[in-house]
Amino acid sequence: MKPENKLSRVLIVGGTHGNEFTGVYLIKKFEQFPQLINRSSFETLTLLANPQAFIAVRRYINKDLNRCFMHQNLEDLTLSSYEDLRAREINYLFGKNGKTPVDLIVDLHSTTANMGITIIVDNDEPFNLQLAAYLNYINPAIKVCGLGNSGRSYDSLRSIARFGICIEVGSVPQGVLNANFVLKTEAIIYTILDYLELYNQGKVPSFSNNLICYEYIEKIDYPRNEHGEIQAMIHPHLQFKDYEVFHPGDPMFLTFDGQTISYEGNSTVYPIFINEAAYYEKGTAMCFTEKHQITI
Amino acid sequence: MKPENKLSRVLIVGGTHGNEFTGVYLIKKFEQFPQLINRSSFETLTLLANPQAFIAVRRYINKDLNRCFMHQNLEDLTLSSYEDLRAREINYLFGKNGKTPVDLIVDLHSTTANMGITIIVDNDEPFNLQLAAYLNYINPAIKVCGLGNSGRSYDSLRSIARFGICIEVGSVPQGVLNANFVLKTEAIIYTILDYLELYNQGKVPSFSNNLICYEYIEKIDYPRNEHGEIQAMIHPHLQFKDYEVFHPGDPMFLTFDGQTISYEGNSTVYPIFINEAAYYEKGTAMCFTEKHQITI
Repeated sequence: MKPENKLSRVLIVGGTHGNEFTGVYLIKKFEQFPQLINRSSFETLTLLANPQAFIAVRRYINKDLNRCFMHQNLEDLTLSSYEDLRAREINYLFGKNGKTPVDLIVDLHSTTANMGITIIVDNDEPFNLQLAAYLNYINPAIKVCGLGNSGRSYDSLRSIARFGICIEVGSVPQGVLNANFVLKTEAIIYTILDYLELYNQGKVPSFSNNLICYEYIEKIDYPRNEHGEIQAMIHPHLQFKDYEVFHPGDPMFLTFDGQTISYEGNSTVYPIFINEAAYYEKGTAMCFTEKHQITI
Repeated sequence: MKPENKLSRVLIVGGTHGNEFTGVYLIKKFEQFPQLINRSSFETLTLLANPQAFIAVRRYINKDLNRCFMHQNLEDLTLSSYEDLRAREINYLFGKNGKTPVDLIVDLHSTTANMGITIIVDNDEPFNLQLAAYLNYINPAIKVCGLGNSGRSYDSLRSIARFGICIEVGSVPQGVLNANFVLKTEAIIYTILDYLELYNQGKVPSFSNNLICYEYIEKIDYPRNEHGEIQAMIHPHLQFKDYEVFHPGDPMFLTFDGQTISYEGNSTVYPIFINEAAYYEKGTAMCFTEKHQITI
């Protein structure tokens, strides 16, 4: 490996959304016990990304921090919301031209959807895919999801580093610590750090180069009336069924007056982020993905 | 029955906490289809209690509305937060000396704790207990919980009426509609209204006068450091185990550095509201109850 390909600095981020406690409390733990995340071949930094939102137990104060990192937004000094300021500061600290630029960002999230343990990658960057595949090889229960077409590849916090992945766990309510998911997230972080150590030493073991990846296609909104009010709920048959096969004709929504709305598409999909609390305001009842076996 | 004992007006309340969507959307439905809650022997009113908190998808704007109804607070015109104003308005509309005083308030809530369907009564008022016992008779999966010692009997919204109960469902994340719990809550409301019709007609059928009631004893806080930061999570063995027997020595918390903290009390209890999101700030990790068989 060329020396310039080695990773020299890694950033673990929690609390990009202030009410997703899993990451926040792991960051607090790592800041108290830094030896847990120290490895010999690279430096590990931590960041509580949105501390004011954490104090307020809200996703954000003014706007979603994890949508604030588009290049033109970071350059636009007229943007002055709390999250715009915080995004510029984070970019100044850890971005490519920042004070201590990082090679990899691991961003810790939780969801109210029943997504178990998901590794999200935002693009086809081989390093990200290989890391995700390694985590899936170590723990086959881990799902890998590609959000390349969702916008996250250019506006998310993790987009400011060369490499970036997100650990998404759920179902966890906002403002709640679920110990099992905290422990699982923590274990994955250590696996990632150990992998990076092997990577820097050129000692990553060989493992299957086939990976099941759920690729984002589109988001599906709730049925709404002319005032934007939702008129239906996730159908009970679909609730908690993230990553399960969803066929045309399957029940999708249940209106408040008891009518079932079925999926009218033509293709089989695999919904994720079903009934994520933070997505009601974003017009997203779920995201459709396609299940692909990819070779990395 | 003496005519003055009949109920003439009932109030169904949703959105006392703005991010508990179950009640909010049922109130919207009932306001759109009032015939669903009309009965011949009494009037049924509806109230979206904290509309600004619902818009903000928060429990409250300034303070918890469901703690604002103490008599001395309602009399104190110097209290001017949004919820203080709203509490006075609700009391003016529906309280004992209000514009349209109501005999019974049914307040709709959800919790992130795994409490299934719970009917909460705040005192030993026979009418409330009989109604709760009837609901448990119709659906034995319904738990009945007595919060008489918690403060709710004098500061809750439902305390302003002669009679009051709360329907508490979960686990439901804040800001989420779970269709199954919406449907179950709706069904209980219709059972209540039908019961009141029978009650007013003196035709309530006889049913068992024995009832299992979980009586509130005390709340248990998280272990905290000197800054008030929590130092432990609900132990995985206790998570989701609301209403299950909890013995001295059973694991209660798991600290962030991996230590188990066990229950050190002397008596067997039945925890509820385990890991309720809104109670982190209230210093409540769970509430202990005692399981009693009472005769009504």
